[in-house]
Amino acid sequence: MNNFTFQNPVKLIFGKGSIAKLAKEIPADKKIMVTFGGGSVKKNGVYDQVVAALKGRDFVEFWGIEPNPKIETLRKAIAQGKAEKVDFLLSVGGGSVLDGTKLIAAGIPYDGDAWELVLDEDKIGEVVPFGDVMTLPATGSEMNAGAVISNLATQEKFAFHHSFPQFSILDPEATFSLPPFQVACGIADTFVHVMEQYLTVTGVSPLMDRWAEGILQTLIEIAPKIRANQHDYDQMANFMLCATMGLNGFIAMGVPQDWATHMIGHELTALHGVTHGQTLVVVLPALMSVMREQKKGKILQYGERVFGIREGSEDERIDRTIRATEEFFRSLGLATRLHELQIGQDTIDEIVRRFNERGSRLGEAGNITGDVTRRILELCK
Amino acid sequence: MNNFTFQNPVKLIFGKGSIAKLAKEIPADKKIMVTFGGGSVKKNGVYDQVVAALKGRDFVEFWGIEPNPKIETLRKAIAQGKAEKVDFLLSVGGGSVLDGTKLIAAGIPYDGDAWELVLDEDKIGEVVPFGDVMTLPATGSEMNAGAVISNLATQEKFAFHHSFPQFSILDPEATFSLPPFQVACGIADTFVHVMEQYLTVTGVSPLMDRWAEGILQTLIEIAPKIRANQHDYDQMANFMLCATMGLNGFIAMGVPQDWATHMIGHELTALHGVTHGQTLVVVLPALMSVMREQKKGKILQYGERVFGIREGSEDERIDRTIRATEEFFRSLGLATRLHELQIGQDTIDEIVRRFNERGSRLGEAGNITGDVTRRILELCK
Repeated sequence: MNNFTFQNPVKLIFGKGSIAKLAKEIPADKKIMVTFGGGSVKKNGVYDQVVAALKGRDFVEFWGIEPNPKIETLRKAIAQGKAEKVDFLLSVGGGSVLDGTKLIAAGIPYDGDAWELVLDEDKIGEVVPFGDVMTLPATGSEMNAGAVISNLATQEKFAFHHSFPQFSILDPEATFSLPPFQVACGIADTFVHVMEQYLTVTGVSPLMDRWAEGILQTLIEIAPKIRANQHDYDQMANFMLCATMGLNGFIAMGVPQDWATHMIGHELTALHGVTHGQTLVVVLPALMSVMREQKKGKILQYGERVFGIREGSEDERIDRTIRATEEFFRSLGLATRLHELQIGQDTIDEIVRRFNERGSRLGEAGNITGDVTRRILELCK
Repeated sequence: MNNFTFQNPVKLIFGKGSIAKLAKEIPADKKIMVTFGGGSVKKNGVYDQVVAALKGRDFVEFWGIEPNPKIETLRKAIAQGKAEKVDFLLSVGGGSVLDGTKLIAAGIPYDGDAWELVLDEDKIGEVVPFGDVMTLPATGSEMNAGAVISNLATQEKFAFHHSFPQFSILDPEATFSLPPFQVACGIADTFVHVMEQYLTVTGVSPLMDRWAEGILQTLIEIAPKIRANQHDYDQMANFMLCATMGLNGFIAMGVPQDWATHMIGHELTALHGVTHGQTLVVVLPALMSVMREQKKGKILQYGERVFGIREGSEDERIDRTIRATEEFFRSLGLATRLHELQIGQDTIDEIVRRFNERGSRLGEAGNITGDVTRRILELCK
């Protein structure tokens, strides 16, 4: 096992009716800015619950943080936060609203332009404390310090890591009315988060392996039930718990990580606005194929333990495991090929150009270069 | 899934050479009291590493916190801490030293007798901050807020829950020279911690089930390797990680818990000084037998997923699963019957008398009364 340091201070408040517990998590003297997405929380009752919980408190609202939150939008929120002397942020929405709020939290006390903080997290100094009501299980942002921000002007999408939420409130009932495509992408995003921390080499930590496999097995078990009935409280609760546990460091202790699928997927979003989870399921099976020699032992273990694939030669089992992975993604109703998303050769060329320009060397072994990325993307066509 | 709140702020610093990172976790202006057990850390090099890491810092030492730490010893440490105006505690040793240190931390700022804090944790006010160097994987105390304290005068042993360590340093190399019996008891303790949080009812949280099973499977996998070679770094690292993850709340989210085995085991320690892990493996198989109807679904799931027991009637599978559990404990070289520990009928009678007097109703359903406890203990003879 590799040496590691782990700390995750987030207070999770989980379950039916938990939004009502909101106010006592925020000190009474705080000037709060509540951040929102496009307005779905007004339809599903979450907005009303939040306003009821904040009754008598000093708060302003900022609306309009979009999926793949844009620096252009967040600059406006930062300006409002500075003007109103906001000293607590409450994100109400999905991972994009929360990711955006993480940058707002760092941007309010910062004198320069907030995009500089995305490009260089060492520039982040003081941060406005923040919490969240999470309504879309997917990113795991509710229990980690990361955020991914997009820049429309430069068509770029980058991650930064700095501050944890002080608390995260997760009420599975808030997920009942989500669009099924968003739920499918959330399941896919969670699945691939786990794969990024798991599908590297064997034998480093049997416990972390079992825990990663446990999330994957659970997702495969609950996905069809959720697709059949999004109002099944227990299944949506299981999904929320998987999403949070999938990217909070719990399965990453002492093990190597990959993240190449995410890096390639971010480019597809940056260039075409494709939903994040949807990009991942296009890239992952192809990446598994191209990296099959290096990842051989782990693909075989994953195939056996997660899909029960035990018969045949190693090559046959690897083929079947990659196919089973793609079939699971298709069972979610998602596309798994670039042409289904109307993405063509020019995008492949542009991504490879960018990776070559940046000198990217991705993956657990640092050997997924621009040229390897081309082989992966050619396989996704 | 049940509603829950989860927060665990402990900073884990894990791996080879990590004791050297100690000093920067403790503010420079602190007056430190370092707490120790009986002296084994002087033989395995841990003491020298701690003293080297604290070079130039203001610290005093307190020696002699025994296994199942006694209030009588801890009162002396509290008196020394008050006299020396100690404002940071560093526990160096196993779970008993750390459990004792948790009470010292609460006892130094407290005006009354510290045993009152064990009996009523609401009396705990300010607490001296503390961290630890953990040398014996077992109790999970390094990543939870609990402690178990014994009272020689009254022959009682009770748990209290209050404060987390600020940091825990886990270097697997510190475990190489542990007595094999202590390692066996640590494996058993970890195993039963997981069972207390797992072996209740089915279908509450598939993810928590998988994670609990993941720890059990890992322990079964690594135990013979550890018994063969306690200097195998990776296996001792796996064991340390399992012990910490087994009782830090990670597998307890939204699920019921049992803890009757522990409550009964604590009495065996209080009355006879039997090592904690040793008491648990005597009680658990008998408790499974007596509670087999109530726990039926979970015993079958555990048997299938952890021991691969799939053939036969439900009753046969339950019998085989209980036998497999006892055999695993015996494979650790531990006794699984009371007579092997020279404990007889008078102890059974005394434990039942105590439980009846306290009106104990233990277990996930609150139905393990004194009389049910008698049936369990009669089966352990």
